Amino acid sequence: MNDHTTTARAARVDGARLWRRLQELGAVGQLAGTERGVCRLALTDADRAGRDLVVGWMKELGLEVTIDAFGNGVGVRRGREGGPPVLMGSHIDTVATGGRFDGNLGVLAGLEIVAALNDAGAVTRHPVAVAFFTNEEGARFQPDMMGSLVWAGALPLEQALATVGIDGKRAGDELSRIGYAGGAPVGRPSVRAYVELHIEQGPVLEAEGYGIGAVEGVQGISWTELTLTGQSNHAGTTPMSHRHDAGLVAAQIAAEVRAVARALGGHQVGTVGALTLTPNLVNVVARTAVMTVDLRNTDEAALQEAERRVLAFAERAAAAEGVILSRRTLARFEPVAFDPALVARVEAIARELGHRVRRLPSGAGHDAQIVAGVAPACMIFVPSVKGLSHNVEEYTAPADVTAGAEVLLRLVRELAA
Amino acid sequence: MNDHTTTARAARVDGARLWRRLQELGAVGQLAGTERGVCRLALTDADRAGRDLVVGWMKELGLEVTIDAFGNGVGVRRGREGGPPVLMGSHIDTVATGGRFDGNLGVLAGLEIVAALNDAGAVTRHPVAVAFFTNEEGARFQPDMMGSLVWAGALPLEQALATVGIDGKRAGDELSRIGYAGGAPVGRPSVRAYVELHIEQGPVLEAEGYGIGAVEGVQGISWTELTLTGQSNHAGTTPMSHRHDAGLVAAQIAAEVRAVARALGGHQVGTVGALTLTPNLVNVVARTAVMTVDLRNTDEAALQEAERRVLAFAERAAAAEGVILSRRTLARFEPVAFDPALVARVEAIARELGHRVRRLPSGAGHDAQIVAGVAPACMIFVPSVKGLSHNVEEYTAPADVTAGAEVLLRLVRELAA
Repeated sequence: MNDHTTTARAARVDGARLWRRLQELGAVGQLAGTERGVCRLALTDADRAGRDLVVGWMKELGLEVTIDAFGNGVGVRRGREGGPPVLMGSHIDTVATGGRFDGNLGVLAGLEIVAALNDAGAVTRHPVAVAFFTNEEGARFQPDMMGSLVWAGALPLEQALATVGIDGKRAGDELSRIGYAGGAPVGRPSVRAYVELHIEQGPVLEAEGYGIGAVEGVQGISWTELTLTGQSNHAGTTPMSHRHDAGLVAAQIAAEVRAVARALGGHQVGTVGALTLTPNLVNVVARTAVMTVDLRNTDEAALQEAERRVLAFAERAAAAEGVILSRRTLARFEPVAFDPALVARVEAIARELGHRVRRLPSGAGHDAQIVAGVAPACMIFVPSVKGLSHNVEEYTAPADVTAGAEVLLRLVRELAA
Repeated sequence: MNDHTTTARAARVDGARLWRRLQELGAVGQLAGTERGVCRLALTDADRAGRDLVVGWMKELGLEVTIDAFGNGVGVRRGREGGPPVLMGSHIDTVATGGRFDGNLGVLAGLEIVAALNDAGAVTRHPVAVAFFTNEEGARFQPDMMGSLVWAGALPLEQALATVGIDGKRAGDELSRIGYAGGAPVGRPSVRAYVELHIEQGPVLEAEGYGIGAVEGVQGISWTELTLTGQSNHAGTTPMSHRHDAGLVAAQIAAEVRAVARALGGHQVGTVGALTLTPNLVNVVARTAVMTVDLRNTDEAALQEAERRVLAFAERAAAAEGVILSRRTLARFEPVAFDPALVARVEAIARELGHRVRRLPSGAGHDAQIVAGVAPACMIFVPSVKGLSHNVEEYTAPADVTAGAEVLLRLVRELAA
């Protein structure tokens, strides 16, 4: 039995205990006037309070807790052997109008796995660990996934510390202020495997009746800002043929983004979420329009094709209207594929446990995609009610939370065996 | 010679004198840092100073000046007979970033006609008068053309006086404060004919090489606010088929407004000048979009057809995306046709004086369209450089100003003969 976990009795997830922790952590930074909305922006007092709670739980569970120089926390449960741990985790910061599940679930489910192993008196071969990464959301300090980037050595610590937030504060100052500038080094992680349980944040699992998502990877993301500069003119006195209407071209491009997403199909999505006209008056042809184009796909070649088509259309439309087009890349990430063997195990375990499971991509960014650069990684999704996330109405039912934790437990036990 | 103007010698426009008055009045409320930008919002101290200057000129020219209960000023030059005058005029208030010509030209050209008649020792059969109407722009107090509406009896005086401006001030209080709440009654105008010289405020005359525009009428205006209510969703995690994207529908409608204007042709114009998305973020599908649709045509039936097409498209597009459409009429004016005989005379006189002249509609609203409800009315347009107006760069060349005044003089002499 050398290659398997030694257990006195079967380790079992206590769904009620996990749910209680989700509610207790969710009450830290609760938004007034909401039932379960949370504002726990990275490196604020609320974030400190949340960290203190989680670190306290880690210590109660007997984990050896280290905080690194960017505030990432890792709690390790020893195995029979030393060496790299099987790591679970996610983040506990939220957006300004967030919920109790995004991120928090991955961390607290990790603690529940540790608690279940403790309860069962289990000794795993390899260490098992739980991490919370600093500032995954990027809501206060950009870029997002900053903590895991630093942890993985993909972003210099100094650069991250020097980041100035939306409130003018420096990340390094705020990290010190809340007492989470730790001593552990960053950038040399050694991890056996990484598993992140997360809410889907989209509508697919609920709409199609699946309980578990086996996440194949994270979509590539292309964010472009387009600025259209035309000429402000009187909406009554300027014949159509004399116009250089920046707003019209923006509208045509926005409609085309949808057409391109539809034409490419598959996992291609496209969104114009932001569009601002100047002067934005009923009777004045818009002089400028600034718009964003968000394109995502799991397939890099298809994503490039979408970019190419949208840009070609934008250039044609701008030229036809005599409007100047300029563009700026706001973000560009290639798709990340999770470890195929791990994805297959998530799918198989979910099925063994009696759940309807489907493979799907993640449309949002996650720490797992950063960790995937330094270790085999995967994610388990559970349904989001109505697909809502980054929203005070964010919710995942207790049964789904428990199911996700049970898949996590089974997979971690396999990986640590 | 009883039916003709008696003149000692031919009355002639003094273009330099008119230009000097335009510059002198334009210096009142001049915008700092601009060469000829003007801010002379209705019923402000600057407006008072402008009115004082104009009233002083009227008195110097021997006109009998009356100020009515809404501050509209009329200066009358007696004719051989009494009875209704041939009225010239416009307004002297400006928008916040206006120029020296919009409105001012019509009033000061009227004074120049009086001066020319005086210089020539001319006695007309009918009185000749010059009016400046209060708050034509509607930039501080809405609606626009407020003074001529009250003067013509189309807007109750009490309602106009009770109007609260963008700065929270009551129009009646401001009128009293600047000393222009006069004693003359409103709402019973008796006018033989009305002629308003105005800058085009559009690009047509300049672009097509015309010196004079014979304005056939004022376009009908249809302003509608559309509110689209969809669902806010994550731009990465929400498949295209699950979206209710308010911004997309708004963009499709904006593109359709252009398509409808093009399809209808003629004088149809259509503009989406204002469009605001919520939450207006790169990675969030817009929950709501609020947009305006500005449709104008000289032909009421065609304008109704444009409204019908845009609304039908909007309903289809909203339904297809599962977005709720609501709408609100912001303004609706039927087209106004100027007196055909007067329009024909403007055209003929301009041609006789050697100018290239074309008929065209006015895309902007003017006091003349209100006066047209109580008397035969017409307008003479002169070119706007680059079509700019409501803009500190607004400009009309001296030669064009003089040419417009010469057409005005000839027409007023005919009408007063």
